[in-house]
Amino acid sequence: MEDTDTALAGKLRPVLATQLAQEHAADIVARLNEEDLETALAALAHMPAERVVDAFDSPELARAGELILGLPEDLAGRVLKAMSADRAADTLHELDSADRTRLLTRLDFETAQQLKLLLAYPEGTAGSIMTTEFVSVPATYTVAQTLQHIRDVERSRETVYSIQVVDPHTRELVRVATLRQLIAGTSEQSILNVGPDRAPIVVRGETDREEVARLISIHDLLAVPVLNDRRQVLGIVTVDDVIDAIVAESSEDVQKFGGVEATTEPYLEIGLPDMIRRRAGWLCALFLSEMLTASAMQHFEGELQKAVVLTLFIPLIMSSGGNSGSQATSLLIRALALGQLRLRDWWRVAAREIPTGLTLGAILGVIGIVRISAWQSLGFFDYGPHWMLVALTVGVGLVGIVTFGTLVGSMLPFALKRLGFDPANASAPMVATLVDVTGLVIYFSVALIILHGTLL
Amino acid sequence: MEDTDTALAGKLRPVLATQLAQEHAADIVARLNEEDLETALAALAHMPAERVVDAFDSPELARAGELILGLPEDLAGRVLKAMSADRAADTLHELDSADRTRLLTRLDFETAQQLKLLLAYPEGTAGSIMTTEFVSVPATYTVAQTLQHIRDVERSRETVYSIQVVDPHTRELVRVATLRQLIAGTSEQSILNVGPDRAPIVVRGETDREEVARLISIHDLLAVPVLNDRRQVLGIVTVDDVIDAIVAESSEDVQKFGGVEATTEPYLEIGLPDMIRRRAGWLCALFLSEMLTASAMQHFEGELQKAVVLTLFIPLIMSSGGNSGSQATSLLIRALALGQLRLRDWWRVAAREIPTGLTLGAILGVIGIVRISAWQSLGFFDYGPHWMLVALTVGVGLVGIVTFGTLVGSMLPFALKRLGFDPANASAPMVATLVDVTGLVIYFSVALIILHGTLL
Repeated sequence: MEDTDTALAGKLRPVLATQLAQEHAADIVARLNEEDLETALAALAHMPAERVVDAFDSPELARAGELILGLPEDLAGRVLKAMSADRAADTLHELDSADRTRLLTRLDFETAQQLKLLLAYPEGTAGSIMTTEFVSVPATYTVAQTLQHIRDVERSRETVYSIQVVDPHTRELVRVATLRQLIAGTSEQSILNVGPDRAPIVVRGETDREEVARLISIHDLLAVPVLNDRRQVLGIVTVDDVIDAIVAESSEDVQKFGGVEATTEPYLEIGLPDMIRRRAGWLCALFLSEMLTASAMQHFEGELQKAVVLTLFIPLIMSSGGNSGSQATSLLIRALALGQLRLRDWWRVAAREIPTGLTLGAILGVIGIVRISAWQSLGFFDYGPHWMLVALTVGVGLVGIVTFGTLVGSMLPFALKRLGFDPANASAPMVATLVDVTGLVIYFSVALIILHGTLL
Repeated sequence: MEDTDTALAGKLRPVLATQLAQEHAADIVARLNEEDLETALAALAHMPAERVVDAFDSPELARAGELILGLPEDLAGRVLKAMSADRAADTLHELDSADRTRLLTRLDFETAQQLKLLLAYPEGTAGSIMTTEFVSVPATYTVAQTLQHIRDVERSRETVYSIQVVDPHTRELVRVATLRQLIAGTSEQSILNVGPDRAPIVVRGETDREEVARLISIHDLLAVPVLNDRRQVLGIVTVDDVIDAIVAESSEDVQKFGGVEATTEPYLEIGLPDMIRRRAGWLCALFLSEMLTASAMQHFEGELQKAVVLTLFIPLIMSSGGNSGSQATSLLIRALALGQLRLRDWWRVAAREIPTGLTLGAILGVIGIVRISAWQSLGFFDYGPHWMLVALTVGVGLVGIVTFGTLVGSMLPFALKRLGFDPANASAPMVATLVDVTGLVIYFSVALIILHGTLL
């Protein structure tokens, strides 16, 4: 560290460190993210410790793990202790276990224990995004006592807006009071009487962060307490942790829907080999499944030889099945994610999607028939003497394939949920692949019936 | 109203109204959403006015417009005045302009003016989700004066956690203080000295709600002030409005990516004709574009006649192009939405996506060649005497199509942004359609080169 430092110090102290000390934490982080690792480390080493902590407290700071490792160990220790416990745990999560253990031994016992508790929860749970630095007072406190306690501990707490009121003996959660209620109350009022008498909204450490986000959102909370089996408060999840979680979750949903292994790393920071790896897996899986289309086509080779005209519409028909399926999937993924639908609603959805698919298929079928008839009549292309039957095959085929695509697309998220997967794993390419093979079979079956005795 | 009432009162008062009065607002809303309109109205009429306001304050309340219209007009007026201004504006947004004007005339002048201001902003802007009920104090106040002011106005403000400190003469915003800073400060301290001396983060009425969400999220704010041209505070956007906006935005992004006209209405509440309309538009547009594939196929009809074996792989090859494109699009949409990339970064992205596409294409190409060779050698299918050249055509075609798909998929969001559209309008079906036509041309061109003199 000191070597890098000497080489860069003259240049960096004025251009980065001093400038950055005046800026918003978010701007500091943006600048640090743009610099290479060495420059960023040198800048951090020259910034006031308080601003370094601010930077590490931002979930937007890229390479937080590498940066903390690159800092002198005593500074790294001070930063880990001063930063919010949930962000410190996230930062340590990025390290391998040897580095993590080494840094944890630099911390005092209490901080290390707190971080170990947070590190134990799997990613995506309330436990993994909660902070252990919350305000808690016994139920015997008055408003004035609580306010004084908040003033005493304010600097070391991530939020003071949500106050956990606990039983003085069992330490069970009794009530959650808000700073707003305290301000509106009178000094000598009991902390138990400042808000309406309702059971607090709580979660457990294992609760999915999406569910936490949903509760915070629908109840307009600033924080939600995370309880253990004995109803004692382990930590709280704050509204800004939840925003970060919702943003990450929605990125992942879009990416998964696009058929990519989800990531929250910024696009330009993903190395090329890693980027290829994230995409190759699904792409190969889809390619292998899609090979069944070649098998299906081989099966109908005789028909293809006899009526090449049928092949002209294969791309058109297949894509319509995939498109109608991906529409249905995107609607159902969100409806399931937002809790608008439950697993048992699958038949209500099917009962809606079948008529929807039939109607959409009929619309496309009519357009297809009009297109073929028009080209034939206007002399743009000659579909042969049986062009009317060919047009009919395309039209009927479209009704069948769009209906099938709609049904598959709408049922896939339910099927995944039933099997214990996140419905958001249903992707547009997956739906298209599922629909393609059957789509070909439907198309050729329709052709065999309609064109029997003429072309086939 | 009174008729419905008499008929249902005996049954409803005990089962709904009384029960509901004890519950969390979110639970009341969930129950009201399940009931039919008449039952919900009867229940509302029997609940304490304060709980009715709570229900209407929840963005989750379905049919808020219909419900407010169904209430007796004096109750409707009282509810509109008491509920938060931004929710009242949302509710009025659902009504046609005659009903809206009639309800506005029931309100006092000031409330009506506030609501008209909010109604003037287009959906999706900061102005449309801001609340005009915020706490504002002159810069000459002390901490004690500010706290007293908060106590006085607390009941009529949506949030008291963010305090707008304005110049007493020009009413320009000078500083944003937080309740936390007030609590940590001393009574006689000037409100200007409680927090660090940094320029407040602000937005304008026209700012996109996604940008507001991004600012609140990266700066961990509880609210952000909305300023006019003279830097006076029009309102504030609070963190819970932003969560609702983010959740709505991410639903819309997934739906648009699936090729559906975006909606935040719950799936089961969208009428079947409306559902078909939302999907038919895009589906028909895609179908009409996809018709170009039929034209492309017609162009190669001679080749198809000579080498039917080529048609066997058309679905496989086309879907690979669409899948690789939709992967790239999903990654880029999110990177652009999160501000990780700017318009001018397009060439950096292209410089990454071309090698990525070539590698992915090569991987699929090898798998394709192995598959054809294996089927031929194992006697599963006879691809003719020139099967090796056919395999090579498929392999080389895949490299070209996957690279092209990746490039189109990654550039489409940039192109949309450049044209002034939201990059999130790029959908998987749109990418697939763009790639399909060119994919066919690439495939047949490769075939013409490799199979020239043998099959073609």
